[in-house]
Amino acid sequence: MKIGIDLGGTTVSMGVVDDNYKILAEAEFKTADCRTPEQLSSIVIDGTKKLLEDNGISKEKITFIGMGCPGEIDTEKGIAVAADNLPIEKIPFAKMLSETFGAPAKLDNDANCAAWGEHMAGVSKGYKNVVTVTLGTGIGGGIIVDGKLLHGKENHAGEIGHMVIDIHGKRCGCGRIGCWETVASTRALIKEVEHQARYAPNSRLGKLIAANGSHANGKTLFIAMSEEDNMARSIFNDWIRSLEVGMWNVINIFRPDMIVISGGISKEGENLLAPLRHAVGKCSTLIRAGRLGGNAGLIGAAALDEMNI
Amino acid sequence: MKIGIDLGGTTVSMGVVDDNYKILAEAEFKTADCRTPEQLSSIVIDGTKKLLEDNGISKEKITFIGMGCPGEIDTEKGIAVAADNLPIEKIPFAKMLSETFGAPAKLDNDANCAAWGEHMAGVSKGYKNVVTVTLGTGIGGGIIVDGKLLHGKENHAGEIGHMVIDIHGKRCGCGRIGCWETVASTRALIKEVEHQARYAPNSRLGKLIAANGSHANGKTLFIAMSEEDNMARSIFNDWIRSLEVGMWNVINIFRPDMIVISGGISKEGENLLAPLRHAVGKCSTLIRAGRLGGNAGLIGAAALDEMNI
Repeated sequence: MKIGIDLGGTTVSMGVVDDNYKILAEAEFKTADCRTPEQLSSIVIDGTKKLLEDNGISKEKITFIGMGCPGEIDTEKGIAVAADNLPIEKIPFAKMLSETFGAPAKLDNDANCAAWGEHMAGVSKGYKNVVTVTLGTGIGGGIIVDGKLLHGKENHAGEIGHMVIDIHGKRCGCGRIGCWETVASTRALIKEVEHQARYAPNSRLGKLIAANGSHANGKTLFIAMSEEDNMARSIFNDWIRSLEVGMWNVINIFRPDMIVISGGISKEGENLLAPLRHAVGKCSTLIRAGRLGGNAGLIGAAALDEMNI
Repeated sequence: MKIGIDLGGTTVSMGVVDDNYKILAEAEFKTADCRTPEQLSSIVIDGTKKLLEDNGISKEKITFIGMGCPGEIDTEKGIAVAADNLPIEKIPFAKMLSETFGAPAKLDNDANCAAWGEHMAGVSKGYKNVVTVTLGTGIGGGIIVDGKLLHGKENHAGEIGHMVIDIHGKRCGCGRIGCWETVASTRALIKEVEHQARYAPNSRLGKLIAANGSHANGKTLFIAMSEEDNMARSIFNDWIRSLEVGMWNVINIFRPDMIVISGGISKEGENLLAPLRHAVGKCSTLIRAGRLGGNAGLIGAAALDEMNI
């Protein structure tokens, strides 16, 4: 049995998996209120201990612990270096986990873990060259070349959301102009939906947003489209075009066996994928939605021991 | 001793190299007038025979023949499938070369061979993750990950020149809009120089172009800049900005150890590299000019046997 831990800005989830990456036990704890590295470490370590105790699993049965973290990671030393939304200051998680549970431990980037999870136990299993595109607040990337995660210098590879596609476009949080995620992330879509709906408050889309306290979410647009709102369709088509341009950049650079779309919006399934495939057109690269949903990161972390780096 | 062959739209060059990739003998033949696959095959095979004869090298001494081709390649079967500027229709070059010279033979894409040459015997030797950017009529790419060339499905990886950076920009020959090569290739720069100079015929740049039959070439702009022509500097700065945007895309995606700039314009050396490095800013990826010049493809072809694929 192995442990996978997926650390995020609001929660940390951890699970015990068997050799086939079936989740045998799972737990989740809040991280949003953490103010110090010590608090955060306690939540991760004590939470994982509690997971084992609550499920009557002795730590002798654990053969490996893997952990996915946001932000900057030193994979070699197993240290979480820094992150935007968590009080991380060089936390040696691998050492802490290894000493606590008496098994080897590894750390990697959260986007990499999600990509690795889908590769080891999900939709891209069996494919050697895969790029996972995670749509959310930004656009994250996990790149698998020849069956291995591409880390790059200082683990900085995979920042596909900061690929500029619109040199005269909007300023991105990273400081550059026209990054893919400024137009094609889920957040960019929601902002655009809210912005456009102000011009047409009596449209179906406008009313849905008004009924939700002037806010849209990842589903609003799809609901309006299902009710044949033409403005919603038009906004969606523009967004798909932005998504497609970056997808083709990934295809032209890697021509991977598969691009996996993950992140919350991928739950829309064919409502999202069919128009996207249509926009991309004829191409030998498969385009699929992730199969592990929110568990991809946890499962990928538990599978980090299966990568030769 | 090994043979390397670099097939291009106007000439084919072939060389015999020793174990350290020093060129012992070299020859070049015209391919521009070839009209049939048979003519082209003869020039390659007979030219290589002649190279050995002229230099008194018996074919028994040859242990490997490698060849770089433009266009579509089947690396597995060693077949040149098709190309834009040459009469290639599924020519089984690897088989032909192997039978003629009694040694194993391999084929790969010309941009890949140039990248592999710099990696095996040039500026990027010893670095495991390297992207070679070839500036010319278009922008070609050769991507080395973990010491191996990235081929992608159907050998279509590495088309970095067709990475869209300006979604509202100019139509590219590939049919897409705003590809990197529409603004950052040497051809794009020359076209821009000719276009802008029309507005200022009395500038130093305008006069240089007028004296050259209304045409610019890769050197015109650098000459005008060396003579402190401000318009030339302004055009160059805009071009460097376009180049830098794509460079950062490559960095954000791969964060390679090194980006190698090759192609004719790389002969400008620090006149090109210093402003480019300045535009890129602080970054752990090294930016260097290729060291093998026009021989990179030939040497890389001769070294194809050293890649485990």
